[in-house]
Amino acid sequence: MTKKPYIPPLYIQIKDILIEKINSGELESGSQLPSEREISETYQISRMTARSALTQLVDLGYAYRVKGKGTFVRIPNFERDFVKLSGFSQMLISRGIKPSNRVVKTGIIEVDKKIASLLETTIGAKAYEIVRVRYGDNIPLALEYSYLPVSLFDDLLQYDFEKDSLYEIIENIYNHKLKFSKQWIKITTLDENEAKMLDVAENTPAFLLESISYDMDDRVVEATRSLNIGDRTTFYTELWPGSGV
Amino acid sequence: MTKKPYIPPLYIQIKDILIEKINSGELESGSQLPSEREISETYQISRMTARSALTQLVDLGYAYRVKGKGTFVRIPNFERDFVKLSGFSQMLISRGIKPSNRVVKTGIIEVDKKIASLLETTIGAKAYEIVRVRYGDNIPLALEYSYLPVSLFDDLLQYDFEKDSLYEIIENIYNHKLKFSKQWIKITTLDENEAKMLDVAENTPAFLLESISYDMDDRVVEATRSLNIGDRTTFYTELWPGSGV
Repeated sequence: MTKKPYIPPLYIQIKDILIEKINSGELESGSQLPSEREISETYQISRMTARSALTQLVDLGYAYRVKGKGTFVRIPNFERDFVKLSGFSQMLISRGIKPSNRVVKTGIIEVDKKIASLLETTIGAKAYEIVRVRYGDNIPLALEYSYLPVSLFDDLLQYDFEKDSLYEIIENIYNHKLKFSKQWIKITTLDENEAKMLDVAENTPAFLLESISYDMDDRVVEATRSLNIGDRTTFYTELWPGSGV
Repeated sequence: MTKKPYIPPLYIQIKDILIEKINSGELESGSQLPSEREISETYQISRMTARSALTQLVDLGYAYRVKGKGTFVRIPNFERDFVKLSGFSQMLISRGIKPSNRVVKTGIIEVDKKIASLLETTIGAKAYEIVRVRYGDNIPLALEYSYLPVSLFDDLLQYDFEKDSLYEIIENIYNHKLKFSKQWIKITTLDENEAKMLDVAENTPAFLLESISYDMDDRVVEATRSLNIGDRTTFYTELWPGSGV
């Protein structure tokens, strides 16, 4: 089956060109976007179409308007709370940022060495895999791979992970209250596929956050590998001197 | 005054070439280094000189020998404890890694906007600046800028920051017991000068760790900006669900 290539409307094309310039760093956070007139002249389009493109950028969260001045680029840097355990969505909400998700893939896999070690199980054991792009104010922030042991979550894939919080499903539906989580932060760069899903350039630096979460019976209930776009994320924590730990 | 250029001995030149290959990723961690014979043939030097170059790499911590097999690259990835507050040197020691420092610069500066905000003071206020390269098993791990308010530390620069722990000086000599520290982890890339000091390639991805430490009277006693080479550092922490924080 062949499909006719989809050609998006003009204002969407212009919007995509401007997002490209934002993601490549040509247009920096806080800088002024070209005006309707400039856009219409540069791309030989109507003022109306230029206005629609700018409105799209604002609606998507990439820009904001200042009355009488123009439209400005906004790339949010999301301060990720590393003080206590909480879900991605909860953290965004607590900072006044609107969370949303796009589910890229769900299924049951046989775990490889890396995931087996995170889930504290054997290679080949069955696990749910849920892959989501996480957005804040509609801007891509992270690509998140979640793994959960099939043995602890009967029929997990019936839920809608675009709408429902995975943490709430784990805690409130399956009754695995979270005790604590081990977390590792590393640096990586996004490969072609990851960059595409996050709508940024290949090789963009990113945080790789790996985590293992335990329930009150010290069983691993979830392991995640989360790729957080480097210049859109800051991890914040507070440390106290240890008492003989 | 002009100086004659210093030409290092042959085995040092070969050692530097091999370190270049390690830092550029051409020789990966865990991979086997060329043998004495291969090195002596490639560079047209004696076996003795080749052996000295490899011994230097081992002594510097970039490689280890496996009896009957050869010499292998080792780039340590230092798991930095983010569970409790402790000094860089203490953390390395607790992991069996030998810490050392090279002081790049010390002095008194008038703080700019960025440092003023970290020290919670006004632009132009006086602060000590101590710049150090931090090593683990003689391998460069981080470039650290420390700032301390002059008002709280009389004659601080009399101490030897290559030998003495800054935390111990703050706590035990000046009696500012540390209460807690705020810490932010960001991603950056090393500029030419930073990369040179850390002996890695320009634009190498790095963690930028910013921190503010408070004493028991809630005064800022130290602010740091620490550039940690990305692939040599992992931050580890444990998170627990919050109780209404």
